[in-house]
Parts: sequence; C-alpha cells; structure tokens
Amino acid sequence: MSSPAHERSPSRPSRRRRSDGERSRAAILREAARLATVEGLDGLSLARLADAVGMSKSGLFAHFGSKEELQLATIEAASAIYDDLVIEPAGEQAAGVRRLRAYIERFLDHVQEGVFPGGCFFVSAMGELGTHPGPVRDGAMAFSQRWLTLLAEQVAAAQAAGDLDPVADPPQIAFELNAYMVLGNMQFVATSDPAALDRVRRAADARLSALAV
Amino acid sequence: MSSPAHERSPSRPSRRRRSDGERSRAAILREAARLATVEGLDGLSLARLADAVGMSKSGLFAHFGSKEELQLATIEAASAIYDDLVIEPAGEQAAGVRRLRAYIERFLDHVQEGVFPGGCFFVSAMGELGTHPGPVRDGAMAFSQRWLTLLAEQVAAAQAAGDLDPVADPPQIAFELNAYMVLGNMQFVATSDPAALDRVRRAADARLSALAV
Repeated sequence: MSSPAHERSPSRPSRRRRSDGERSRAAILREAARLATVEGLDGLSLARLADAVGMSKSGLFAHFGSKEELQLATIEAASAIYDDLVIEPAGEQAAGVRRLRAYIERFLDHVQEGVFPGGCFFVSAMGELGTHPGPVRDGAMAFSQRWLTLLAEQVAAAQAAGDLDPVADPPQIAFELNAYMVLGNMQFVATSDPAALDRVRRAADARLSALAV
Repeated sequence: MSSPAHERSPSRPSRRRRSDGERSRAAILREAARLATVEGLDGLSLARLADAVGMSKSGLFAHFGSKEELQLATIEAASAIYDDLVIEPAGEQAAGVRRLRAYIERFLDHVQEGVFPGGCFFVSAMGELGTHPGPVRDGAMAFSQRWLTLLAEQVAAAQAAGDLDPVADPPQIAFELNAYMVLGNMQFVATSDPAALDRVRRAADARLSALAV
C-alpha cells in the first residue's frame, strides 16, 4: 500500500516553480475552467474571460490565439485539476476495491467542495458538446474515456485480488458506478443538497456488495 | 392489465383538432425543443428560432412575448412529447416491474430514434441550467422530479406485488435506474454508438435481478 495523502502534500517534488508568465497562464485557465462549467465551453469568449480575470482582451489574445485554442487549453487545465484532486490521491490507495472507492469519494468531495461551480467539468462539457463534433469535444471525451478506463482497471484488480465476482464485466461495472456519479453530480449542482451525493454512495455500496465474493 | 399500445393509437380521443394558430404554435415549439438540445435553452433566441422555422422574428414575437416565455413554453412542449412517447405508452403495461422496464425501454427508444438531436431534453436542460436558478430551471427540474417519482412508484408497486425485495428504498432504486439512463443517453449523443444504450439495459437488468425475490 502506498503512503497516505498527508505525507506527500507539504512539498510536492514533482511541482517545479513556475515563471510569472506560466503562473498567469495557469491562473487564467483555472478561471476559464470554472467559468466553462457555468456558461459552457462555447460561452467561453475571450471577452467574457477577460472580464472574469481582469485582463484586456488583447492581453488574453496574446496567451491564446483563438477561441478553440483557449477551449483546448481549458480542457487540459481541467484534466490537471482532476488529476491533482481526484486521480492522484486515490492512486495512493491499494489497487482494487479500496482505490475504486477512493475514486468515488474523491470525486464526490470535489463536487461538494465546488471546485467547479457547475460540478464535474467533464460532465458539464459532455452535456454541452455531445452534439458539437470537433477537437474540443474529442478532448473532453478522451478524458471521460480515461476516467472510465481507470474505474474498469480497479474493478479488474479487485477481481484479480478475489474481492469481486470474476464473472462481472469491468467496463460495464465502471459504466454503472460512473452513472451514479454523473447523476448525483447533476442533482447536487441543481439543488445544492448533499443528499444527492449520499445516493451515489449508497448506490455504489449496493453495487459493490452485490459483486463481493 | 391495460390494453396494448396498438389498440389505442389509431384514434386518440383525448386529442382534439387544433386550430391553425395552435398547430403553428405547436410546430414552432417542437422545433424549439429540438434546437434547445443542441444550442441550449439559453441559446434559444427568437432570432435563431425564427431562422429554424422560417418565420420572421416579429412573427415569433407575436407568439412569445419574451425569451423566458419561449423557454417555458418549450419545456412544456418537451414534457408533452415525453408524455406521448415514453410515459403514456409505458403506462399501458401492468404496474410494477413490467411498467418499470417499459419506462426504460421507451426512454432508450426515444433517445436512439433521435426525437431530440441532443438526446433526452431534460438531461440536456438540467446539464445546462444547473447553475442558472430561475423559473426555467425550476420547470425543467419539476419534470425530472416527476420522472423519478414515476420510477419510484413502479418500484413500490413491484414490491407490493411481491416481485422486488421490500427492503429496498424506491427513490434510491429510481435514482440508480435513472442514472444508467442519463449516462447512456449522454454517451449515445456523443458517440452515436448503440452500445451505450445496451449498457443501460444490462445495468437495469442486473439491478432488478439483484432485487428480485
């Protein structure tokens, strides 16, 4: 088993010091990702973002040559936030059921904490972009696919460890667990009622208990 | 058990003949509902809709005094479509597990048939409006709540009939079944791959089998 999160967090050796230009770009993209969960990635105009971050539109244009470039960079920034808050910390748990549950708990925490005001960035993006083919949708879909793969890998690891029924299909179970998270996230965003997130926990418990051997 | 759909469909006595004005309004709202699943309810400007239905903006303005009025009427129209295609036909099945499965099948059919290009109107609306409080969001949420209530009622009916475990919590099971539908719908819209809808069927089968007594 790997070390718990608090042993790693004080200094993260993988983070190098950023230059001012980079820090500014990162700060702009964090704001862009937050804004995109409210106004949509398509609502992410350079003008609106300039307002939100207090920069001139031409200053922003120097960072991102086009709206599409800004959208793609925003998806990358959201992926990085997700890695930091959900995927890496959960990765510190033992492979299998523990890590699977940690993915779910970390996901629910980031929704409840309002990291993005519109809930999970990728649920928001997928809802918006489903009908809009192109590189921006592809970028968001690639992340969702990666997330489903991570969940399926941990189902398979749990089966290999003898903890879950070997007959179950890992991608199918990943779909089901992710479905609970996606709906719980949408309901929480619309109602601010943590009961929606408890439903996710209960659903995942019931599903994993039914598969336990 | 009630009569099958084909016995009722040739003439629907509840439908009265509409006047030209009403028919035109209904046609406009059907197009508005379709458009809203692609461009968002917020993207539903009178100008864009006028383009889509081939009317002047001022002609549309005579029907709907404001954008919000148009949005609310669109939600009502989408509810009516949903009633016609999903809720009423499923209601012809016996209460309990049969009707529950019919709700799911009809829902998946309407997604696969592309009744709305962006998939389920209400998933699309909830994804967009979660962070936008107001009467339009309330209207969409009320429909989603009604749908969850219908599902929970059929879980309870199946319990009363001795078909499902009486210990299960009907609103929780409704949440889980709806979660499969919501995610399957989003994946199908983004990929056009019916495998996403098969995942929903398999998930619902597994969940209902686990609860069968």
